[in-house]
Amino acid sequence: MLAPDRYFTPIPTVRATAQALYDEFGSLPLVCPHGHVDPKLLALDEPFSNPAALIVIPDHYIVRMLYSQGVPMESLGIPRLDGGAVETDPRAIWQRFADHFYLFRGTPSGAWLAHEFEGVFGIDEPLTSATAMRIYDRIEASLRRPEFRPRALFERFKIEVLCTTDAATDTLEFHRQIRESGWSGVVRPTFRPDLAINIRHPQFAAELGRLSAATGEDITSYAAYIRALESRRAFFKSMGATATDHAAETPFTAELSAADVNALFGRALAGKATEADARAFTGHMLMEMARMSTEDGLVMQLHPGSDRTHNAAIFEKFGPDRGCDIPIQTEYTRNLKPLLNKYGNDTRLTLVLFTLDETTYSRELAPLAGHYPCLRLGPPWWFHDSLEGMTRFRYQVTETAGIYNTAGFNDDTRAFPSIPARHDVSRRVDANFLADLVARHIVSLDDARQMMRALTYELAKKTYKLD
Amino acid sequence: MLAPDRYFTPIPTVRATAQALYDEFGSLPLVCPHGHVDPKLLALDEPFSNPAALIVIPDHYIVRMLYSQGVPMESLGIPRLDGGAVETDPRAIWQRFADHFYLFRGTPSGAWLAHEFEGVFGIDEPLTSATAMRIYDRIEASLRRPEFRPRALFERFKIEVLCTTDAATDTLEFHRQIRESGWSGVVRPTFRPDLAINIRHPQFAAELGRLSAATGEDITSYAAYIRALESRRAFFKSMGATATDHAAETPFTAELSAADVNALFGRALAGKATEADARAFTGHMLMEMARMSTEDGLVMQLHPGSDRTHNAAIFEKFGPDRGCDIPIQTEYTRNLKPLLNKYGNDTRLTLVLFTLDETTYSRELAPLAGHYPCLRLGPPWWFHDSLEGMTRFRYQVTETAGIYNTAGFNDDTRAFPSIPARHDVSRRVDANFLADLVARHIVSLDDARQMMRALTYELAKKTYKLD
Amino acid sequence: MLAPDRYFTPIPTVRATAQALYDEFGSLPLVCPHGHVDPKLLALDEPFSNPAALIVIPDHYIVRMLYSQGVPMESLGIPRLDGGAVETDPRAIWQRFADHFYLFRGTPSGAWLAHEFEGVFGIDEPLTSATAMRIYDRIEASLRRPEFRPRALFERFKIEVLCTTDAATDTLEFHRQIRESGWSGVVRPTFRPDLAINIRHPQFAAELGRLSAATGEDITSYAAYIRALESRRAFFKSMGATATDHAAETPFTAELSAADVNALFGRALAGKATEADARAFTGHMLMEMARMSTEDGLVMQLHPGSDRTHNAAIFEKFGPDRGCDIPIQTEYTRNLKPLLNKYGNDTRLTLVLFTLDETTYSRELAPLAGHYPCLRLGPPWWFHDSLEGMTRFRYQVTETAGIYNTAGFNDDTRAFPSIPARHDVSRRVDANFLADLVARHIVSLDDARQMMRALTYELAKKTYKLD
Repeated sequence: MLAPDRYFTPIPTVRATAQALYDEFGSLPLVCPHGHVDPKLLALDEPFSNPAALIVIPDHYIVRMLYSQGVPMESLGIPRLDGGAVETDPRAIWQRFADHFYLFRGTPSGAWLAHEFEGVFGIDEPLTSATAMRIYDRIEASLRRPEFRPRALFERFKIEVLCTTDAATDTLEFHRQIRESGWSGVVRPTFRPDLAINIRHPQFAAELGRLSAATGEDITSYAAYIRALESRRAFFKSMGATATDHAAETPFTAELSAADVNALFGRALAGKATEADARAFTGHMLMEMARMSTEDGLVMQLHPGSDRTHNAAIFEKFGPDRGCDIPIQTEYTRNLKPLLNKYGNDTRLTLVLFTLDETTYSRELAPLAGHYPCLRLGPPWWFHDSLEGMTRFRYQVTETAGIYNTAGFNDDTRAFPSIPARHDVSRRVDANFLADLVARHIVSLDDARQMMRALTYELAKKTYKLD
Repeated sequence: MLAPDRYFTPIPTVRATAQALYDEFGSLPLVCPHGHVDPKLLALDEPFSNPAALIVIPDHYIVRMLYSQGVPMESLGIPRLDGGAVETDPRAIWQRFADHFYLFRGTPSGAWLAHEFEGVFGIDEPLTSATAMRIYDRIEASLRRPEFRPRALFERFKIEVLCTTDAATDTLEFHRQIRESGWSGVVRPTFRPDLAINIRHPQFAAELGRLSAATGEDITSYAAYIRALESRRAFFKSMGATATDHAAETPFTAELSAADVNALFGRALAGKATEADARAFTGHMLMEMARMSTEDGLVMQLHPGSDRTHNAAIFEKFGPDRGCDIPIQTEYTRNLKPLLNKYGNDTRLTLVLFTLDETTYSRELAPLAGHYPCLRLGPPWWFHDSLEGMTRFRYQVTETAGIYNTAGFNDDTRAFPSIPARHDVSRRVDANFLADLVARHIVSLDDARQMMRALTYELAKKTYKLD
Repeated sequence: MLAPDRYFTPIPTVRATAQALYDEFGSLPLVCPHGHVDPKLLALDEPFSNPAALIVIPDHYIVRMLYSQGVPMESLGIPRLDGGAVETDPRAIWQRFADHFYLFRGTPSGAWLAHEFEGVFGIDEPLTSATAMRIYDRIEASLRRPEFRPRALFERFKIEVLCTTDAATDTLEFHRQIRESGWSGVVRPTFRPDLAINIRHPQFAAELGRLSAATGEDITSYAAYIRALESRRAFFKSMGATATDHAAETPFTAELSAADVNALFGRALAGKATEADARAFTGHMLMEMARMSTEDGLVMQLHPGSDRTHNAAIFEKFGPDRGCDIPIQTEYTRNLKPLLNKYGNDTRLTLVLFTLDETTYSRELAPLAGHYPCLRLGPPWWFHDSLEGMTRFRYQVTETAGIYNTAGFNDDTRAFPSIPARHDVSRRVDANFLADLVARHIVSLDDARQMMRALTYELAKKTYKLD
């Protein structure tokens, strides 16, 4: 059912060029520098349980769409924090999913799932209410076979390297198990210290406790806190990490004086930090993280601009990452100025910027990345990791920043079996974009071939120092 | 002169699919859930007076464009509030309009008028300075014939249902006359209480007086005021209304405490409300309107983001709705959070959101509508109700929200004879969008056919409960 | 190497129409109403020195891109303010440029340079590391020939009129020389008083001194200051100027009372103005400049929205205009309201608006220009003066404002030999846009021909009163 020329422009000459570029470069190994696959999966290499648990329940793209049309979270088996009853029959969940599968027409989830069903599981009919149980049976049967275990899929997917995302205090135990197992797959951790930096988070004190335990630092001062974070970065690096990652509501950066940051950190330790303190501390710590990156060489990633608990009722009942995250307007030019003025001309720093606010592509991000040597633009993120979203990114960014100030593709996914589909969509978008440039005589075919190789493979490796 | 394949992409394969989708679904009856046609027109069913009065003078799209090129409002016959002299010869107005008709090249007004001239009045030559009087004569002759009376056009246009927009204190007398006339046309009112909620408006006190008179409530307290509004909603519902509509400069929502709202309303009754009071009261009343909608089932519409009196001189001389409305940046994620946190998970509520700020499509509106069960996205509004505007909407919204969280089409017009043209443009845009998805193998042709039926007909009926 | 149909849509029918429109109108004389060519160039008419000095060093588009990939400014021969050592060998600079020329793939600089190399210098091979010296030699040899002197190029480029940008206190000595030389080329100054208005600028006092000297006004009061500016405007007008130009961080406008502006100007004279004073004064002076334009008829241009010293280190080391300018979000609806309410209905005023914030095209600028008689929209500016940028502008602006409220093309360049390339790209974009409208039956071919003539030639002449 998957058309070989899917997603390409329906102008025959352009389509043929896109197909040729895709055919030449579309099957290069997958470089996955940023994502949320659980390393436990690859450490234990146990079979996946069932289609609903694998495909429906953990996928917030799927859950949010069904919920938006009135399907209760409980009926999809989303666990309640209070332990209340939810649907436990995976077949009932799958049927409900299939009944509403039409909602995904024209969405990236629709495209990824089509690829996953046919490309990974060999399903040869569309998912509908009528075919739901037959398809469930086929996927379930596959999952019992050894070639559908995580490591086998990793190899079949031709993943060259997979980076996970891990809290600053994570023991990286599963990463250690993978490395010591003798398996050849390359899985790297990424240092994500959000919880250790968010001084108003209910778990901040507990996270500092773990940070102390992991580093032996007695974190009673800002200086000790900084030493502990530097120590963890060194540990992550020793375990293969090449990057850090940071979420923040805004990309605000500003350095505090030593006196101010000491006083502020004191309030944080005492549990007396205000909202203003938290904002100031995040802005300060982004500067600190950039400083550390100039020293230890870890690539810094910044993912700002999401209100992650927009729907309080759902957040309280089901917890985070259930689709209640809503983007907010984001400003980079002024917010990043302090950081860029201090570290932006330092070629030891690589800072990869992401956004959920597409208006910043041509107005702020491309001009910034087209000037500061430290900057690279991450691929379209989250809601924009889609055919149209990635296409808009290329057309709005390339003229000012070129392609060489962009960072290649991230799949950014929790959904392990969707990885090939996501890279495939990205590669098709890039092939199509380049074919259009060729057709309009903006670049030559030979230039386009070099650009295609860069976009699909080289830029991700180079930006994230994965060579 | 109207090409049968107008507005479709000039790629032959895509155009053919678009044409096929349009041919199959383009002549479905017109569902008109939101607009500004005067019900008096259909109640009295009198002939239209002349081409200038029908087509030029009341159309703020036309007036603003001519004014922007230095054509005085007076010379177009726009009545002055002070009764000062303006052009009274409809032929002179029409000639002036024709002399400047080239200004509409590439605009939706150009497209609508082309359709209206040929499709409604059978004109077979372009409007120019030279043809102006000949075309005037032909339209004028048509208007004298019975088949060009409002009800006859309503039937010829295949309007299944037409919703008007009416003040909270409107007697709905003309709606009553239509219902009692025995005519089969379905015309429904919509409850629009803006004037009764805008406590700083010069006519607020007078509107409260009308509200008292209409409901028998002695509105000396906030509680009585709320009872009066609930009573009017019930009356509108009894007269066929299925929806309410609300304008506001921003989508700000926030609930006031009982004490605060009582005190604020007291200041409003005393004529002492401040600008801050007005803003707070509007934000509070949007919450109240959502609450009432959960109870009475009326669909809630919100149209924010216009500065409606930008040009003070024109406003003072000619009054509102003369083309001096200019959009402002609009923020939904944070502004709607209080309302959505209180009512957003309640499946009894339908809240249809509109915007004049296209940047919110992919950043805020699609993520919100792709999560909250109460939300639906209204079609592109006003300046964006155009070929490119509607196309951008579909490409920017569908990947995150799908099409099933959108509300179908609104013609939103005062210009009764332009209704078929507006629906036709919308249907062609949707056919073209879907044909592109088919050509790129994003959806199957059969899916596209189901989607086309939804977009042209079903979604409007379902969203606005017009079944 | 330059394909005759470059940049046109690869749909054969549309491409053929675009080509026909381009063939008919693409070689009309160049009208250049806004740019930054140094009039000294055309006054002295001396040969250009060498390819690096002509093409690389002064072009901030080129410098910023190379710098973004880690190429030091010094290695490109950018002079340091402190006189420190930089690369002085033009061949070494050219080789470095060629080594990184691949960075410009898909950028407007890539397109302009391709045109310039082949169209102006007759180069018939692509610039690469290997061809660098050969191409250098050929350009250098050309530059020694009389037909590559500035005036000869001006004539060969078919420039009908070229407007420069000049400080309020400029003597216009080179303009005088050009006029008195007997040469037939038309070069006009433009009045740009930014430095005389920016009361916080380190050179403000010195500029006032020059303003006094030039006008004989003793600028000890605001009244004298205004008289001096009016006097300079009259002088510029006498030297052929038809326009003024104004940069500002935001388009904020607001009139100060006589008392307030006098007091504020007193603080400015005393060197005690605050940041808030500077903002208020700029907002006030934009109103004053509009007032003067209604009186002397000079067309007013406004270029807001750039943070022009974003990278402090580069600014301090190399000075302004080195590519460290980053756009900021810009708001027009509310900021321009005071100015438009006072002068917007006055048909003696022409105010041409520019933006670096594309989100304002459809939300604010097109609605404003589609209503106020004084407004025209300048072409896409700076980062957006590109194939995709200009295309987005047309598609986002035309439906609301039409094409007749836009101002034709500006090349806005310092790079004299790139002028034909820039106009050519613009004309190709417009031909392509119009061909698409024809193919979709939105306008007739005959309408498109008239629109093409307007866009390439007439609108610039009319808007800037260059008839």
